[in-house]
Amino acid sequence: MHATKYHIFTLKEAPSEAETTSHKLMTRAGMIRKISGGIYTHMPLGLRVLHKIEAIIREEMNRSGSIELLMPIIQPAELWQKSGRIKEYGPELLRFKDRNERDFIIQPTSEEVISEIARNEIHSYKQMPLIFYHIQTKFRDEIRPRFGLMRSREFIMKDAYSFDTTEENSLISYETMFNAYSGIFNRIGLKFRAVAADTGSIGGNRSHEFHAIAETGEDTIVYDRYSDYASNTELAEAPCLILERNKPKQNMVLAHTTDTNTCKKVAEYLKVPIHSTIKSIVLMTPSENRKMYLLLIRGDHTLNDIKVKKIEGLDKFRLATEEEIFEYFNCKPGFLGPVNINKSITVIADRTVANMSDFVCGANIENMHYTGVNWSRDLAEPDAIYDIRNVEIGDTCPNSNNILSFQRGIEIGHIFFLGTKYSKALNVSFLNKEGKSNITQMGCYGIGITRIIGAAIEQNNDENGIIWPKSISPFEIVICPIGYKNKTRVRETSIKIYELIKESKIDVILDDRDKRPGIMFAEWDLIGIPLQIIITEDNIKNEEVEIKIRKTNQKTRIHITKLIETTIRILNNL
Amino acid sequence: MHATKYHIFTLKEAPSEAETTSHKLMTRAGMIRKISGGIYTHMPLGLRVLHKIEAIIREEMNRSGSIELLMPIIQPAELWQKSGRIKEYGPELLRFKDRNERDFIIQPTSEEVISEIARNEIHSYKQMPLIFYHIQTKFRDEIRPRFGLMRSREFIMKDAYSFDTTEENSLISYETMFNAYSGIFNRIGLKFRAVAADTGSIGGNRSHEFHAIAETGEDTIVYDRYSDYASNTELAEAPCLILERNKPKQNMVLAHTTDTNTCKKVAEYLKVPIHSTIKSIVLMTPSENRKMYLLLIRGDHTLNDIKVKKIEGLDKFRLATEEEIFEYFNCKPGFLGPVNINKSITVIADRTVANMSDFVCGANIENMHYTGVNWSRDLAEPDAIYDIRNVEIGDTCPNSNNILSFQRGIEIGHIFFLGTKYSKALNVSFLNKEGKSNITQMGCYGIGITRIIGAAIEQNNDENGIIWPKSISPFEIVICPIGYKNKTRVRETSIKIYELIKESKIDVILDDRDKRPGIMFAEWDLIGIPLQIIITEDNIKNEEVEIKIRKTNQKTRIHITKLIETTIRILNNL
Repeated sequence: MHATKYHIFTLKEAPSEAETTSHKLMTRAGMIRKISGGIYTHMPLGLRVLHKIEAIIREEMNRSGSIELLMPIIQPAELWQKSGRIKEYGPELLRFKDRNERDFIIQPTSEEVISEIARNEIHSYKQMPLIFYHIQTKFRDEIRPRFGLMRSREFIMKDAYSFDTTEENSLISYETMFNAYSGIFNRIGLKFRAVAADTGSIGGNRSHEFHAIAETGEDTIVYDRYSDYASNTELAEAPCLILERNKPKQNMVLAHTTDTNTCKKVAEYLKVPIHSTIKSIVLMTPSENRKMYLLLIRGDHTLNDIKVKKIEGLDKFRLATEEEIFEYFNCKPGFLGPVNINKSITVIADRTVANMSDFVCGANIENMHYTGVNWSRDLAEPDAIYDIRNVEIGDTCPNSNNILSFQRGIEIGHIFFLGTKYSKALNVSFLNKEGKSNITQMGCYGIGITRIIGAAIEQNNDENGIIWPKSISPFEIVICPIGYKNKTRVRETSIKIYELIKESKIDVILDDRDKRPGIMFAEWDLIGIPLQIIITEDNIKNEEVEIKIRKTNQKTRIHITKLIETTIRILNNL
Repeated sequence: MHATKYHIFTLKEAPSEAETTSHKLMTRAGMIRKISGGIYTHMPLGLRVLHKIEAIIREEMNRSGSIELLMPIIQPAELWQKSGRIKEYGPELLRFKDRNERDFIIQPTSEEVISEIARNEIHSYKQMPLIFYHIQTKFRDEIRPRFGLMRSREFIMKDAYSFDTTEENSLISYETMFNAYSGIFNRIGLKFRAVAADTGSIGGNRSHEFHAIAETGEDTIVYDRYSDYASNTELAEAPCLILERNKPKQNMVLAHTTDTNTCKKVAEYLKVPIHSTIKSIVLMTPSENRKMYLLLIRGDHTLNDIKVKKIEGLDKFRLATEEEIFEYFNCKPGFLGPVNINKSITVIADRTVANMSDFVCGANIENMHYTGVNWSRDLAEPDAIYDIRNVEIGDTCPNSNNILSFQRGIEIGHIFFLGTKYSKALNVSFLNKEGKSNITQMGCYGIGITRIIGAAIEQNNDENGIIWPKSISPFEIVICPIGYKNKTRVRETSIKIYELIKESKIDVILDDRDKRPGIMFAEWDLIGIPLQIIITEDNIKNEEVEIKIRKTNQKTRIHITKLIETTIRILNNL
């Protein structure tokens, strides 16, 4: 490729709305252009990266025995009614009517369509295991699209779906996909971690997320340095920090705590440690079955919504309003507690709270707290005890008791064991060896292809721009001649080297635009091609050229006769 | 590829709704599966064809100097308001609101988005010529989707857009695309013809369609065997069949023509040739500017709507209702004519009609016609004379006077010179050499990728199934062993040959499913792989295998040592 025949258009400034490094750099390097909120054009340089990622995914998926097909973007709502997802999915699911007033959706994933296909195509146990995948555009009407390709509305995903005869076999397919995903992210050159994850609205009961490690990631993951435990904090089990409840030592005393509506303020006011306080959170179940819950966590802990939603009756909880709280507690929030409350309220304590003694909690009287409170003696035991808090720094691994490590991550892959959730609803059955009809076991597996681009940049950049892993760089090498137009020897040498590199099947671009060296180097540093070959008249005199490694900024002069051999060696070591 | 690791699922019967050969065969061969009207899944075998077509298009487009990017499927309606197409486009344009009640469309093409991109990226004449293209999913809400992939709602198109400094340069880009398209269709192996075409709602004033020749095509094209004239009948100029008007020989006579409301019936009733009769067609302009037009064509000719729409004032015509006709003519349709009519009616005559003499036309009295009618003598000269009819068999080429040939075609490509229609509306300007701001000249160029699959099958099939051109066949060769499971030598030889062919970079599948020979051969004939290698125990004894060419059904026995060499030779000659 000659740069004059290509479209390279970099910007000095990123748009003000770009919050993350990758969004800024992708825009400045001319990889993407915004058309509307969360909707982008992949510009020529960016599309090359996208295609390289797609090629790696395709190769690894095919190697795993998965079979590629292509399901439509526009899908009839009918199928989504059958699976129930038309109701479960919120406003992120884009719905519309066609000219005949029939309901359609723009797919965010394709469980329903693949099930409909499998229903028609799978008849015998002999056809399984079967894993289909496609690489297709998705749409999710995000309420707040942001971070460029990281949380866009239109994006490209590889989604795969497995069909098996038994749960046991389905977990083998799950394992196959787990390994294929690890292979894909390794080949791309990402630093990533697979963690146990919540299944969310997709359903099923076993799930792993693959996270690219990055400071700017929206997720927090925890892991044990010394075992293979790793989890999204959403799911990570929080330990009970008090193994056995101590006997009461203090009497329950009503204390003035003027203007202290948080545990932190109460602890400071009363000069007690914050971990002797209890936080009271009031929830309501939906209107058709209105019921109040009081959830208790230690003052320094935070509530984990996902864990709460898994408690029976609380799957659709919401926070109680100030009016509702006043109705039940006759007190405004900030001074609530579990002592002497309305019997209709269900009290759920976090496992640590359940073992606390001599604790501090709100007195349900404005500007008042109780100290020295003890279960059984001062109030009834909680109605239920659950793990309802997020893990915190200092918590231990539930498997090994080692202290957990925390990291931020960008979710780039997610795999689910689905069981029969979709195959039952859409009747994907087969005849087993004995000729009896059974329901297939399914799994689903997604990779956010466009998001990988952003994640790779978050992991690989410096003050000058992007530093592409060579596997997905728009070009592997750029040739930068100084004086291309006016200096015949520079031009001729550049073209000769370009042709030689091309013959070696290396993806190379020759910058024949004759830009000023400062501008040219700044541009290629920004775009992030891993290797630059710099050709100057002075070096040619010594039959030499200079190679610059983008990542280390290290420059080496090399004799032209050894250029190809050296280039290949350096590339292989990158 | 081993067939047991792949998904092959053929059907004995095509769905009853499949009207065309390609739709039937694609469904039976398991290439596509319908999800909703005009919405299909590309099954694994079908997707291989799609990918091969995409690869050829990509190579040829890149070779032409075009640059690939990827514009989004979902586009803000705002841009379509600027171009005016939001109004021009009918209900085929799918419109919807997002969760914030903002208007969006699902792109049928991308003139607006590429203009918006060019507006930001193009600043100087030095950046042009510039041709961008993308391969992207489109949606057109067809009122009657049919013929499988031929007229589907969701489909894949390659669309390209050129930007140039002058009209002259833009026509060079047009030529470049014309040649690239010819190259693409030739490589795919299609019989096709490029014809002059109407520009329709896209706009501009120069356009060619590329048609795959097929009996089942929806379009009719005409061409001159002896010159390079070729045109869609929509656009083809119809000659004036009477060079000079003869002097009147007959008197105008009112004749009873009971129950003869068509020219054919009148001619039979009066025992005159049909080409002495005139057909009267009554049109109205839209309500805001209601005006009646009487269009006259010869009795044996048909009206060409597209030509009529190009007449000033008639761009939005509709047929007059029976009530309107009675209001103006005081007569019901079937007996209308231009003699003695309301002065407010504009009379437009086809060029042939304008030179007719002693003709027959309706008398504006039920069951009555005039004979021996002559212009000037019996009625005023027509208000205007235009070419308003379709070309018919026997018509001559406007360039050479040779008799035109007719063919049916499937539109697979369409190129347009747009001028400044979009660049003006969306302000795509640049600074010219003198530093002055100019508007860019644009062209747009489309290839219906999914439609090519259907067209290729319409051209290449027999009673047993599809016969793929090797360039786009899902596999180039299938190895068909007889007795794969039980006969060790058959199995070992098959695997050995499979490996050898694969090493030669030929796309090969080994049918290791151990199906009965009759079923296996019928299936591969249906799927249409161009070359079958048949391996039997008997032939192995003589160190031979059999090659069958799908197209000719010709079988040849070949010594194993010469297999690869012979296979490559046969493939190259296919």
